[in-house]
Amino acid sequence: MNVTELPTPAVVIDADVLDHNLAAMAAAHPGTALRPHVKAHKCTALAAAQRAVGHHAFTCATVREVLGMADAGLGDDLLLANEVLDLTRLRALALAQEHASITVAVDSPETVDAAAAAGLRSVLVDVNVGMPRCGCRPDEAGRIADLARARGMDVRGVMGYEGHLMMVDDPADQRQRVDDAMDRLLAAHDLVGGSVVSAGGTGTYHLHTRVSEVQAGSYALMDSHYARLGHPFQQAVHVFGTVVSATPKFAVADVGLKAMGMDHGNPTVETLDGQGADVWFLSDEHVTFVPHTGVATVGDRVRVVPAHIDPTMALHAAAWIARGHEVIDRWPIDLRGW
Amino acid sequence: MNVTELPTPAVVIDADVLDHNLAAMAAAHPGTALRPHVKAHKCTALAAAQRAVGHHAFTCATVREVLGMADAGLGDDLLLANEVLDLTRLRALALAQEHASITVAVDSPETVDAAAAAGLRSVLVDVNVGMPRCGCRPDEAGRIADLARARGMDVRGVMGYEGHLMMVDDPADQRQRVDDAMDRLLAAHDLVGGSVVSAGGTGTYHLHTRVSEVQAGSYALMDSHYARLGHPFQQAVHVFGTVVSATPKFAVADVGLKAMGMDHGNPTVETLDGQGADVWFLSDEHVTFVPHTGVATVGDRVRVVPAHIDPTMALHAAAWIARGHEVIDRWPIDLRGW
Repeated sequence: MNVTELPTPAVVIDADVLDHNLAAMAAAHPGTALRPHVKAHKCTALAAAQRAVGHHAFTCATVREVLGMADAGLGDDLLLANEVLDLTRLRALALAQEHASITVAVDSPETVDAAAAAGLRSVLVDVNVGMPRCGCRPDEAGRIADLARARGMDVRGVMGYEGHLMMVDDPADQRQRVDDAMDRLLAAHDLVGGSVVSAGGTGTYHLHTRVSEVQAGSYALMDSHYARLGHPFQQAVHVFGTVVSATPKFAVADVGLKAMGMDHGNPTVETLDGQGADVWFLSDEHVTFVPHTGVATVGDRVRVVPAHIDPTMALHAAAWIARGHEVIDRWPIDLRGW
Repeated sequence: MNVTELPTPAVVIDADVLDHNLAAMAAAHPGTALRPHVKAHKCTALAAAQRAVGHHAFTCATVREVLGMADAGLGDDLLLANEVLDLTRLRALALAQEHASITVAVDSPETVDAAAAAGLRSVLVDVNVGMPRCGCRPDEAGRIADLARARGMDVRGVMGYEGHLMMVDDPADQRQRVDDAMDRLLAAHDLVGGSVVSAGGTGTYHLHTRVSEVQAGSYALMDSHYARLGHPFQQAVHVFGTVVSATPKFAVADVGLKAMGMDHGNPTVETLDGQGADVWFLSDEHVTFVPHTGVATVGDRVRVVPAHIDPTMALHAAAWIARGHEVIDRWPIDLRGW
């Protein structure tokens, strides 16, 4: 089948570009130096492609992601890089320890208690390295580790996500600030011990030499937000749409805000011959736009590039895999939900 | 089960408030004077509640919504208020005509051709009444109707959505502009004929006296965007979250941008005792906020009010129904996808 025959809106992954992105990151951070974050794609088939280029350890954001990865046979070393208190879900993780290696992040006595009560065996201390989100203060990390060890759990090390530094424009400023953040993480590591120091993302992957692993996820598929950083990763995913209504002044395609992560703003729209468009607005099921080449025709296909890939994937049940114009596979986006 | 025991993030619908909203709209537009739009909730159980207060005709935005409603026995009079060219999907609609009454919107020769080729029997001419989206010019509507009749289809009338007028702040200005938009729709109706003149939404439901039916959807559950209009509909849905990390300066709950429609901006956050909070930002799985009452504790529950309900529902597999604090039911959000 040709990509232009797909039912729209359709998430289409360019297999050649995906291969390029996976190879580029694997060259920079081979094997366990990268712990790919599956939250960016929520797709075990894509995770399997990441394992095929050498990465055996994965980062997850939800219990559902961990369980789905374990069930898919990708459970060599799964990190839940998030705090969870729900005992029912944590007990499901504990059961999955029978066939997968699972480590969960903790940053408080409450999260240590929950992990221990559920029967989990292994934790990482989540450290706040400057972004106002999860993670304990660096000087608290030793105490959290002690609490976990006192409950019989293995403390594998520390993690800290410098998410506030992903989009810093000035390279020298970004390098300095990432270095400062890693000072905080390594200070915590001195108090915690263990072999794992986990940090980073697609926006800072090139700045990490002092950690044991980088947690990047978006690099595999990319989005227009990350694209402006100028890293060697290319846009591998588009949402294909169909022009369903057209006037001499504007056109309307069937890719709306229910098919698109909107938190980073509007997507970009281009025609199949690569011409751009001015995007006016999105509504539930539509994007209204003006092609730079002038008039569009009802039935034309367009490519829509998400501003943020992670929530875009979460809105679709499957992605189509294309090599050139030929659709070669369909990958379920099977890690959605919580 | 108490609502505070639900796994989070959890969409929770307050049954009393829902009942109030459904009754308030049914009083204004009883029976077939309202054609509730299911895109706002994507939930056949909620549509059944709308039928229970007297509405037998429904509006849908996708083929999936139409088919799901037909399968659920809610197919007395289903309108696909959207242009679709996909013959595979349109043929599925044609098959569903065996057990449901289905009408599709058309606004071009191409959409008429597609509907006829698929074997659909009934159309409505979609008219642009001022918003740059789908719909033909009023003076083209007669020609579109003639094309449909020439293909053997029943032309039931016209529809036109004045979506650009939902949030006009000045009441007199809004009334005048809706009136102007309905002049356009009725001019088209003069050319098209048929018994249906369909328009409107939650933001303009009170201004329609010249149409045969109003298409409102958001009124049932509401969101913070529509709430500022001051209509008699109250917030019936919250996304419950759990504080998973807390510091003296801010707290973090497990309701992120993958659990929340973000196109209308950030949600609001409140504690269970009704105190507000300053929302700093959302990331994939988290909201960082500062409660107005000061410090939050790990394990606290919070209520998050979506800025836009439609895409929020599309991100969840089910909604929990609560009366007071008691969870009384779970409704699958079963009309997601396309």
